[in-house]
Amino acid sequence: MTDSREDGFLGGRLRIAQPARGYRSGADAVMLAAACPASPGESVLELGCGAGVASLCLGWRVPGLRLIGLERQADYADLARRNAAANGIALTVLTGDLADPPPELRGQSLDHVIANPPYFLSGTSAPQPGRAAARQEATPLALWIDAGLRRLRPGGVLTLIQRADRLQDVLAALSGRAGAVTILPLAARAGREAGRILLTARKGARGPLRLLAPLILHAGTRHEADGEDLTPAAQAVLRHGDTLTRLFAKVS
Amino acid sequence: MTDSREDGFLGGRLRIAQPARGYRSGADAVMLAAACPASPGESVLELGCGAGVASLCLGWRVPGLRLIGLERQADYADLARRNAAANGIALTVLTGDLADPPPELRGQSLDHVIANPPYFLSGTSAPQPGRAAARQEATPLALWIDAGLRRLRPGGVLTLIQRADRLQDVLAALSGRAGAVTILPLAARAGREAGRILLTARKGARGPLRLLAPLILHAGTRHEADGEDLTPAAQAVLRHGDTLTRLFAKVS
Repeated sequence: MTDSREDGFLGGRLRIAQPARGYRSGADAVMLAAACPASPGESVLELGCGAGVASLCLGWRVPGLRLIGLERQADYADLARRNAAANGIALTVLTGDLADPPPELRGQSLDHVIANPPYFLSGTSAPQPGRAAARQEATPLALWIDAGLRRLRPGGVLTLIQRADRLQDVLAALSGRAGAVTILPLAARAGREAGRILLTARKGARGPLRLLAPLILHAGTRHEADGEDLTPAAQAVLRHGDTLTRLFAKVS
Repeated sequence: MTDSREDGFLGGRLRIAQPARGYRSGADAVMLAAACPASPGESVLELGCGAGVASLCLGWRVPGLRLIGLERQADYADLARRNAAANGIALTVLTGDLADPPPELRGQSLDHVIANPPYFLSGTSAPQPGRAAARQEATPLALWIDAGLRRLRPGGVLTLIQRADRLQDVLAALSGRAGAVTILPLAARAGREAGRILLTARKGARGPLRLLAPLILHAGTRHEADGEDLTPAAQAVLRHGDTLTRLFAKVS
């Protein structure tokens, strides 16, 4: 990787080097970290950690985690290692493919898995979704979810962020293997359809699915100016590293 | 059926006799009718039409529909026929089981199917959902959806209302057979999780799934008094027979 540039996250609390060209993590990775209900002392694996944004945001918020990142591309994995060191957060980065995990991971049974699987082409889930997915995706979404579930202990939690139009594919991949599925829609503005979903599911659980009220990211009805127009709820997460886990917690 | 009583719907515009004891349709049936995008001249089949509330609300809003109701219980079917006549709306009610439709239906290929499948026990979709469903449900939800899709023409629209915690089961039953799935969450109050989902799907289509902003039913943060506290949006549908189809229409 020739060039990298440094981006600030959590209001500048984290400085993270990412490739100047190519995929760079952004708000989605921060939202993913905010939704993971990890407690101090627990273990967390991030599938496809890239330069480490989500894992490092989570490590910044929750002290004493055992954080592991898995990344297929060696140059991103190197960046993630350097970013962890530069920010003083313990993150073990393994280079390897989630479909064929490295030996260090195979025996492990973790408390949490988080992932922001790449957003591919059309989210169509109409006739022959399996074939369509295989055509479009180098690593199909279902394989990400399968890999995550395999690495979780029973009762462990998978936390995902994904395009809202892939909801059907995500739920199909979880079916019969994880329950207590909780969906937080993320909408750009009030009244708009969801662009993303944040989702948690518990391995082997039987609790019912829950569809939460959406989190609205931007104030106003449209983009009025170049300035920041994040809602207070989005600012709390993106600028101050606040958690979203209380939204997911069951309120009786 | 020994006793029936008359309930007003759409602000009293429809008077519909329903059993004094036993299952009575309510707001969910009215919401279902409001979400169906039928146009004048099209055909609509309601699976499990009960006393006819949803079909008659739809017939009241959209003139010139060819409306057919299928109902397994003969006493409900009789009520639906009487209610249609009393309200001056043409509705053909067939008595029969959706799993084994009467001959009049078998050859048909309809523009729309609507259904409000009964809400059963726990919506768990964790391990062995098939077995759990079979244990709980006289007619499994998947069978309602299968029956609906069978009766639709290619490109025809299935409109459902169901408990939100059955979303995974609904999407699984649609998978590979219908696309352009559009989900409108219904929430009792702002900020609450969805209790119901209204969903449309187009047979054989490939369009992406859409998760709309929720429709909020009640104003305020909790039930303050015995009086009516419906939001204007809910009042428009429930009291004035307004449509919800513009929420489902794709806005580019």
